[in-house]
Amino acid sequence: MLNEFGLIQQYFNRPAPEGYLGVGDDCALFTPTPGWQLASSVDLLIEGQHFFPDVDPFLLGHKALAVNLSDLGAMGARPKACLLALSLPEIRPLWLEAFSNGLFQLADQAHCPLIGGDTTRSKQGVVISITVLGEVSAGQALQRSAAKPGDDIWLTGTLGAADIALRLLQGRLAADSERLAASRGALEQPWPPYRLGHALAGLAHAAIDVSDGLVQDLGHIAKASQCAAHLEWDALPVDSSLDGLPADLQREAVLVGGDVFQLCFTGAPQQRESIMALAQREGVLLSRIGSMQTGSGVYVRDQQGLHPAPAQGGFDHFGG
Amino acid sequence: MLNEFGLIQQYFNRPAPEGYLGVGDDCALFTPTPGWQLASSVDLLIEGQHFFPDVDPFLLGHKALAVNLSDLGAMGARPKACLLALSLPEIRPLWLEAFSNGLFQLADQAHCPLIGGDTTRSKQGVVISITVLGEVSAGQALQRSAAKPGDDIWLTGTLGAADIALRLLQGRLAADSERLAASRGALEQPWPPYRLGHALAGLAHAAIDVSDGLVQDLGHIAKASQCAAHLEWDALPVDSSLDGLPADLQREAVLVGGDVFQLCFTGAPQQRESIMALAQREGVLLSRIGSMQTGSGVYVRDQQGLHPAPAQGGFDHFGG
Repeated sequence: MLNEFGLIQQYFNRPAPEGYLGVGDDCALFTPTPGWQLASSVDLLIEGQHFFPDVDPFLLGHKALAVNLSDLGAMGARPKACLLALSLPEIRPLWLEAFSNGLFQLADQAHCPLIGGDTTRSKQGVVISITVLGEVSAGQALQRSAAKPGDDIWLTGTLGAADIALRLLQGRLAADSERLAASRGALEQPWPPYRLGHALAGLAHAAIDVSDGLVQDLGHIAKASQCAAHLEWDALPVDSSLDGLPADLQREAVLVGGDVFQLCFTGAPQQRESIMALAQREGVLLSRIGSMQTGSGVYVRDQQGLHPAPAQGGFDHFGG
Repeated sequence: MLNEFGLIQQYFNRPAPEGYLGVGDDCALFTPTPGWQLASSVDLLIEGQHFFPDVDPFLLGHKALAVNLSDLGAMGARPKACLLALSLPEIRPLWLEAFSNGLFQLADQAHCPLIGGDTTRSKQGVVISITVLGEVSAGQALQRSAAKPGDDIWLTGTLGAADIALRLLQGRLAADSERLAASRGALEQPWPPYRLGHALAGLAHAAIDVSDGLVQDLGHIAKASQCAAHLEWDALPVDSSLDGLPADLQREAVLVGGDVFQLCFTGAPQQRESIMALAQREGVLLSRIGSMQTGSGVYVRDQQGLHPAPAQGGFDHFGG
């Protein structure tokens, strides 16, 4: 049986790119880019809480890094490196190979090398914590507090699919294999637009990644920026996997559903063309979904008028 | 009941120092020091595996950061910031207050502000993952591969106490309240000499922090440096809490016992005076415990001569 060090060697100790000291010493090392700020974020994923025990480990490796790249993108930062803390009940070679392949495939694509980590044993389930490090030119970070009244609100990708897939997999929605096939990719293999996020640094105003639900996350921008956010229901990009579902359920999945990992950001109307051109260049679907206004809170405008958005909901691990 | 965001606010969102953007956005931000390299490390602590469920939460908060500062020191890096990923079965205000106080007290002392994190719920026990970021002047990091034949081997602090405390608490050693009182501080509240580690950057050669046991960790230096390490048994600083224990047990606790979080490093004999002066300045107990030689492996010299050190042992979470 492999010991801890053999495990690290075999699955995670790939050569670090030039300029990095990677796995194998007390710390990893790299030289930051002069004049740039260092951005850092950490996420914790727990079996049974954030993923199903039988999820495809390749997709899990991808998602564990993707949710962190999503945070970098929402800050306008480009990826620089990542670290992995991993706890397993036992060593399962096939699982580890698939998990590491999923992680490395995205790490390679994002130029975000794995430079350090810690592996350990837990009697309970799998625990994954990834820390990402990124860089953004000084003063250009996309902070939540930077939205201004009059700003457009933009959203990448579509909404609702991850929530519907979760409901189907949990049996909270009647089995529908076709709908599950259409929606589960959004849940299990999200592709956050981290390259667009970095391209928007210095151009957009505020940004956040939609992890806990659009209304909740946009509410963080509104609160930090001391503005109100007005969403236009008809402009929201409802994922096609929601077609045919009851209107109430669609509305809940779109406004409150979590695990989206798309980018919500604000920008001056004068920048519309530049912003759309960037999204085009990066091949990212982009919708203009509302505007920031004076006041506070999040509102939705539909055929019946302007209403406060559902106040509860979102993916709050402890309460809500 | 507090929700996740209230939890973060109440216990962990202390104001970040000037020059940092801390908790509350998608990423934390700070400006690295020009001409320095960024050092990073992550550790994962799991209830029942790395700490007892009933451990004093103040000490646990201290230790969770201390083990990471130990890694920075072993790289010669000075602390810059830390991130915390924390999973709890439920919100326990008294526990959280004590845990965060223990963490912040050491973070303040080490000038290592908590700038980001993630909190979540796990049905099982407590999971703590801390990432530390530090800085070391370019080219001065203390790498494991930098030891040279003829180097002195140095060790801070004493050996064996944490291992004896663990045996007492696990009932593997007959109850002895006096011995437990003398030894458990080493296990539950380690004080790694991270300041000395940074001061040694550019002066010492190789370094490692003793977390898995002296022989195992020194073996990493020997292997990476393609040298042998010869330890002098009589020079090893046996903790006074081991007084009166059988010689075999003392030997095992000293050579193989983990959770030490002291610094083992090598340096040229010409630097002896400078190294001792630095330790004096930092108030750190320092022992010269052997020398690096040509060859490979770790050996111990005692009254019977030179023997290979115990090959097995050390704290290996999966095997060993």
